[in-house]
Amino acid sequence: MTPEDAMREALAASVAVHGRTSPNPPVGAVVLDAAGEVVGVGATQPPGGPHAEVLALRAAGERARGGTAVVTLEPCAHHGRTPPCTDALIAAGVAAVHVGVADPNPVAAGGARVLGQAGIAVTHSALDVAGGPLRAWLHSVRTGRPHVTWKFAATLDGRSAAADGTSRWITGPEARAEVHEFRSHVDAVVVGTGTARADDPALTARYPDGTDRERQPLRVVVGHSDLRTGSRLDAPDVLHLRTQSPDDVLKALADRGVVDVLLEGGPRLAGAFVQAGRVDRVLAYLAPALLGAGPAALGDAGVGTIGDIARLQVDTVRVVGADVLVDARPA
Amino acid sequence: MTPEDAMREALAASVAVHGRTSPNPPVGAVVLDAAGEVVGVGATQPPGGPHAEVLALRAAGERARGGTAVVTLEPCAHHGRTPPCTDALIAAGVAAVHVGVADPNPVAAGGARVLGQAGIAVTHSALDVAGGPLRAWLHSVRTGRPHVTWKFAATLDGRSAAADGTSRWITGPEARAEVHEFRSHVDAVVVGTGTARADDPALTARYPDGTDRERQPLRVVVGHSDLRTGSRLDAPDVLHLRTQSPDDVLKALADRGVVDVLLEGGPRLAGAFVQAGRVDRVLAYLAPALLGAGPAALGDAGVGTIGDIARLQVDTVRVVGADVLVDARPA
Repeated sequence: MTPEDAMREALAASVAVHGRTSPNPPVGAVVLDAAGEVVGVGATQPPGGPHAEVLALRAAGERARGGTAVVTLEPCAHHGRTPPCTDALIAAGVAAVHVGVADPNPVAAGGARVLGQAGIAVTHSALDVAGGPLRAWLHSVRTGRPHVTWKFAATLDGRSAAADGTSRWITGPEARAEVHEFRSHVDAVVVGTGTARADDPALTARYPDGTDRERQPLRVVVGHSDLRTGSRLDAPDVLHLRTQSPDDVLKALADRGVVDVLLEGGPRLAGAFVQAGRVDRVLAYLAPALLGAGPAALGDAGVGTIGDIARLQVDTVRVVGADVLVDARPA
Repeated sequence: MTPEDAMREALAASVAVHGRTSPNPPVGAVVLDAAGEVVGVGATQPPGGPHAEVLALRAAGERARGGTAVVTLEPCAHHGRTPPCTDALIAAGVAAVHVGVADPNPVAAGGARVLGQAGIAVTHSALDVAGGPLRAWLHSVRTGRPHVTWKFAATLDGRSAAADGTSRWITGPEARAEVHEFRSHVDAVVVGTGTARADDPALTARYPDGTDRERQPLRVVVGHSDLRTGSRLDAPDVLHLRTQSPDDVLKALADRGVVDVLLEGGPRLAGAFVQAGRVDRVLAYLAPALLGAGPAALGDAGVGTIGDIARLQVDTVRVVGADVLVDARPA
């Protein structure tokens, strides 16, 4: 197997732990022996547990000697809760390390240099590893803030509910299932009190049959209003942040180790996040349907004239069931 | 060449005359000789001129004998402004005819039967010929009304202008160029008086450098208000229909031989057409951008609750420059 094929395997291994590692990055690693055979695969375990490289090296044992370690993130060179991964790679005797993304963390970085000084050949992948499970963690290291994905469901004409407030369902079961899958690998799901009152959402990550997924995000409600007693979000494990400020919200979440945030509305809260420049990814699930009236998906974002429009760039467009998903980020 | 490959050639020939044949259908034809070589290509000429089959047979001459005529539409069997195409096919001595779409016109239909009775083998194409240039004409024959394509440009959140009314430009040059190309092959372009007053559009079909295309659609303004004197649509060749009724508009256009209509807004007129069930195709050019305020692309369409939502089905989704085009039709 080539190092790039092994990088795809390492990415797949990291997808499997996506959402279980924060505040650590979800890393995947594959060890190839000297002949290019896969002899070890690993992915970051929950905080305090072993890193991806260490698990992959353990599985490989002596077969790692003279081989290649393929890691989605540059191996750390510092003592954190675990010893430096560079030490483990050097001790295992690998001849080469193939890296997906350079570590932007000034404390942990320098791994590639340490490896090079030990005589290990370090190469970098041509694959888009940064757009994978590491995306939110990379963002949070670079900016000091959690990564925010704003997801909305609307008709082609931008309505997220009909004139009478009814909205179940605008998008189809395939789109809704994707959102539940997404919830299961973020650290927190956020809505405003208006949405909490209007829709009484559970915000849990569920399977299509309605049962809860194993991993659940922190559920967060933002706004000064009280929640209705007995509503689904009136629960002790729900975090209620009595603020309207996106930065206050993100600070409170970062303090709790949150790296990856899914913002699910409503229009007013989404408008505040867009206006503050705190939306890092937009997932627009657009139903091929028309309403012509009813609440818009996005409320006031401080844009008064076309010159101030908030431009995005499209990363991907996909058909999901009968709906269309536009996945975009700020231009 | 196989008959299906020849059908693709015939479709391409019909694309070249799309918009120049109304009220006749834009048909393409290819004649293959007995060995399967292309010996003639033709497409419908403007009303009174020869039909596609006749032109292709002329080009083929004696080489048509024992060959196959491939035609996007079932050849006509009646005397209209020109003699029946079936006569020409029989006289040319073709052994087979491959048909794209059966003729839904009760007066002209029956061509396949006439050919069969003359001992010619008639087969039907597996290609989606009906979705091509014949689409509007087929619709108008089946329903008695022109085919209406509602095109709009909006942000991902459904706004067609910013809060202050500015809207140039929401979509990029590639999307706008497509719309001008579309205008050049429809029979009429329609806007409401509100859009005429707000945007002062020319509604002409232009090349990206601003010069007019050879073929221009009939320009139509709908509504009771007067146009501003000196505005671009205040011109003798612009049809001003003082009504709010989509069916009155379509009747007036059908009376003028219009088969294919491009409705370009605004929200109120589009809402009336959607409510009346008179939108047959939706072209949504969605810019990856957010406004959060400003006029919606679609106004009141008589939908008050989610159960009455106007469902569409997506035919294609395409990236056009930086924008996304969703091409859909009523479900």
